[in-house]
Amino acid sequence: MPLWKVYAPAGAYSDEDKQAMSEAVTSVYPQVPIPKFYVVTVFEEIPDGDLFVGGVRNARFVRFRVDHIARTLPGPILREWWVRTVDTTLKPWVGDRGFDWEISIDETPFDLWSLQGEIPPPFESIAEKRWVAENRASSYTADEKLPAAPQFGPGVTDRQSVGVS
Amino acid sequence: MPLWKVYAPAGAYSDEDKQAMSEAVTSVYPQVPIPKFYVVTVFEEIPDGDLFVGGVRNARFVRFRVDHIARTLPGPILREWWVRTVDTTLKPWVGDRGFDWEISIDETPFDLWSLQGEIPPPFESIAEKRWVAENRASSYTADEKLPAAPQFGPGVTDRQSVGVS
Amino acid sequence: MPLWKVYAPAGAYSDEDKQAMSEAVTSVYPQVPIPKFYVVTVFEEIPDGDLFVGGVRNARFVRFRVDHIARTLPGPILREWWVRTVDTTLKPWVGDRGFDWEISIDETPFDLWSLQGEIPPPFESIAEKRWVAENRASSYTADEKLPAAPQFGPGVTDRQSVGVS
Repeated sequence: MPLWKVYAPAGAYSDEDKQAMSEAVTSVYPQVPIPKFYVVTVFEEIPDGDLFVGGVRNARFVRFRVDHIARTLPGPILREWWVRTVDTTLKPWVGDRGFDWEISIDETPFDLWSLQGEIPPPFESIAEKRWVAENRASSYTADEKLPAAPQFGPGVTDRQSVGVS
Repeated sequence: MPLWKVYAPAGAYSDEDKQAMSEAVTSVYPQVPIPKFYVVTVFEEIPDGDLFVGGVRNARFVRFRVDHIARTLPGPILREWWVRTVDTTLKPWVGDRGFDWEISIDETPFDLWSLQGEIPPPFESIAEKRWVAENRASSYTADEKLPAAPQFGPGVTDRQSVGVS
Repeated sequence: MPLWKVYAPAGAYSDEDKQAMSEAVTSVYPQVPIPKFYVVTVFEEIPDGDLFVGGVRNARFVRFRVDHIARTLPGPILREWWVRTVDTTLKPWVGDRGFDWEISIDETPFDLWSLQGEIPPPFESIAEKRWVAENRASSYTADEKLPAAPQFGPGVTDRQSVGVS
């Protein structure tokens, strides 16, 4: 689901840095929760002279560009919380190392998306729970598209018992 | 219109592979139909160690990120059909070769878009038909902005003849 | 705010070209107005053989992909004006040099965005004016979130004086 593109100055991060950053980024999402393998991080090392901020060449700037596909962050409180959580998570690799940074997140259509040729199962479905547990995409049955924790509304008898005609 | 970004492991695809993939991707769109030159494919070879799936380094993963500009896919049936068609088209270069893969498509504003300094003509207009035929962007007249196959509604006389007051 | 990604043929532009292009791109935005450092330009040099237009290999094509975050362009007239202004600005580096080119702009959520760990202040706020003047992100107070030039509506007395009950 989330695709993280990290535009970083060439040489800014070692292999170990990239490993640690991608783990940190991945660790934010289980709170949603989504399968871990939905989180893809791609680093692009930018040669000195190929990035400009306000028209000024800048080799100390890291730009994060994120696509969120599977989930929309509902409401202003959660959206601000998310941005602040992500910034706190990234700080050790940016501000703490003297890099300037900027992050922006887009939200793209959930129904124009597939993994391993499979259209991802509905949110919170039995199949999605299985994907979380197995941490990989696989085919699933129609039964598995049902919610893992279904919410039933009151039926006719219940409605009468509470005075609803 | 569609911009295909293909993040592939460095060395995964030969020049011939890239050529064949971009032709296959282009071949899906005439069904829409749109001018062939609207389809742009950009390959980005990712060095080993620069891509992570779920926080785990992965050099066998191909990530497709697509922008659709000129058309919105209307309705759930067509959207699912599209994703499945694209997956079937790509399978020879991904699943059949042992690569994991993921694809997501964004839909961006059609009115913030230009080619060769020309704002693309309206969908299904005379000018667009000419662009399809010539397979290149060029300036067009106000007359050419009219629909190539106009749909007229019933006029006053017709409305009366069918009993509409 | 605006993130400009420029996919250009490898070697197409010198360091001086990139500098001048990024300055030209940045110069379009003060008309909005926004802080200059909101404008980020990233060049990606595409090796020959990695870009295809309509399934045909093309080493004379420049593709601009832009994210607009802080502002939405309101209404068809302003949106068309913007696209034409950008094309005119870019022409010296594309059409005038014999390159084909295409540009598309996406508009992404303004509330999923931060700079230097700070959520940008409201549009036209006192804090934003200060960011423009200082040309860098910094923390700001609740007071500074107020509009720099507040628009007041008519009060009770005024409403009566114009005959509104």
